[in-house]
Amino acid sequence: MPQLTRRAVVAGATAAAALSPVMSLPSARAAAPLSGKQAPGFYRYKVGSHEITVVTDGSSTFPLSDTFVTNTKKDEVNAALAAAHLQKDQMTIPYSPVVVNTGAKLVAIDTGTGEANFERSKGTAGQYHSNLRASGIDRNVVDIVLISHFHADHINGLLTPDNKPAFANAEILVPAGEWKYFMDDGEMNRQTTERMKGVFSNARRVFDALGRKVTPYEAGKEVAPGITPVATNGHTPGHVSHLVTSGASKVYVQADVTNTPMLFARNPGWHIFFDQDPNMAEATRRKVYDMLVAEKMLVQGFHYPFPALAYVEKSVSGYREIPVPWNPVI
Amino acid sequence: MPQLTRRAVVAGATAAAALSPVMSLPSARAAAPLSGKQAPGFYRYKVGSHEITVVTDGSSTFPLSDTFVTNTKKDEVNAALAAAHLQKDQMTIPYSPVVVNTGAKLVAIDTGTGEANFERSKGTAGQYHSNLRASGIDRNVVDIVLISHFHADHINGLLTPDNKPAFANAEILVPAGEWKYFMDDGEMNRQTTERMKGVFSNARRVFDALGRKVTPYEAGKEVAPGITPVATNGHTPGHVSHLVTSGASKVYVQADVTNTPMLFARNPGWHIFFDQDPNMAEATRRKVYDMLVAEKMLVQGFHYPFPALAYVEKSVSGYREIPVPWNPVI
Repeated sequence: MPQLTRRAVVAGATAAAALSPVMSLPSARAAAPLSGKQAPGFYRYKVGSHEITVVTDGSSTFPLSDTFVTNTKKDEVNAALAAAHLQKDQMTIPYSPVVVNTGAKLVAIDTGTGEANFERSKGTAGQYHSNLRASGIDRNVVDIVLISHFHADHINGLLTPDNKPAFANAEILVPAGEWKYFMDDGEMNRQTTERMKGVFSNARRVFDALGRKVTPYEAGKEVAPGITPVATNGHTPGHVSHLVTSGASKVYVQADVTNTPMLFARNPGWHIFFDQDPNMAEATRRKVYDMLVAEKMLVQGFHYPFPALAYVEKSVSGYREIPVPWNPVI
Repeated sequence: MPQLTRRAVVAGATAAAALSPVMSLPSARAAAPLSGKQAPGFYRYKVGSHEITVVTDGSSTFPLSDTFVTNTKKDEVNAALAAAHLQKDQMTIPYSPVVVNTGAKLVAIDTGTGEANFERSKGTAGQYHSNLRASGIDRNVVDIVLISHFHADHINGLLTPDNKPAFANAEILVPAGEWKYFMDDGEMNRQTTERMKGVFSNARRVFDALGRKVTPYEAGKEVAPGITPVATNGHTPGHVSHLVTSGASKVYVQADVTNTPMLFARNPGWHIFFDQDPNMAEATRRKVYDMLVAEKMLVQGFHYPFPALAYVEKSVSGYREIPVPWNPVI
């Protein structure tokens, strides 16, 4: 359509009104349509010479159950939600995997809930692969996928919706402790809850589709230039976080040391339903967060609100995250 | 390039190394290049049926002067920067204009520092118009540009780099008090500082290029469906904020009631160099922020870090902003 002057638009308004879908509105011209679409969910920053791309998979929202925090009354959880200006009686858990370009290697750390979950979740989650594309990263040139632990929101993005490897040319690195535990038939057969049986069967579904072609890795040994796994067991038996270092800069990619900081950093003694060994998870959480505070170290939180990058301070009840201001350049 | 299997890539590594720009790195394959590019800076949310697009213009970083906060020692300002985990001895001021689609009208509130500033700032600022395009909004279909006050970072984006109207088909609404003051030759001639002379001459440069074709508006009277100006004088003589309401939802688009919240919400008694009447600005700030706290009202802050949407709480020294978690859908 040629650009119209305001005068021409106003003059044509009577005729246009007969055709306009918004003719009942007190407007002389049709407005631009609502977009209805969020911005692509990625964010970039540098750690020394490493370039990190945070790629959100979206989030899931569900009713808050009485047992979501296993050792705290729902009323107290609701009070914490209200204190964070969040809606009560529901939880929203965001997912923010990252990709690290070390210059020599392109390393994806965790993979989100999987593309098939986009339709299932009505678009709220399963966004990782489309946001990765939007960020300009071709998953076929990813060198390494580094898995923190075997929960579905971290590994399901390893597969395409037709159960093929999503990272066709990447080496898949998995925590050795996680691999040993979840691939052990004895451990699987000893599970008594539907949830834990589900974690085992989902992990096996994913890794079987990859022909179990993975490389188990140990904590403490660099897996790519400047990327060192740190054992942070408790959430799962082999749960691992990753310290990304370049020159004097570092960021602690924590995976699930906490879930959302508004609940679980501020209340490190709260046990989330998903922690397999909640006491060990709490001990790990306190140790890691005391370190983050003491070292003034950046943390990248898988379940922090996108872009999920923050500093951490001590607070009355535990810790408080201080989000890093969005940098409009990198 | 056809997709290569890992084996083929490894097999070809020796040959490739001769060509690779990263051949000195201990890598069997070339890494993907660093992107070097930030995500497009826009963010969408709903206020009732209104759709708001936050469009960042980027930010400016400059050395912290002794008089940046006119009534506070630089050491104290540096301490506040450190407490916010920001670098000392420098200030970064982000710019986050918004566009409101009411369904009937597409309304841009403020316009950033202007496209010509992209090159001048080496890309850190002057991003508004490209981010607006990235968000899918054609500036030629903007119905109304609503100006909060006449500082350069709010009005310079009204013009293209060749000094033509950037919003070719929009009505330009300006605060009546601001128009009266800055277009008054007597007021202009009474200015004694280079800075204030610059504010006058820049405002006249911009509005003269528009043939002074603007519509002055008064506070308290709706200027578009659900958009009501609120007088918030002090920062400039005619400074105006905007309350955007749809159904039971609202957001307070504050313009410069505070500059960056890390300094000026947390310390509402601090007077920024740019406040023309600092005592009036402080009184306005305290009144608005007490209201935001009491009403638990969302604030959209022009100088908040992108996406610049927060709740506000009382704190020991003043107020503290609680950023709203990024919503991966709208």
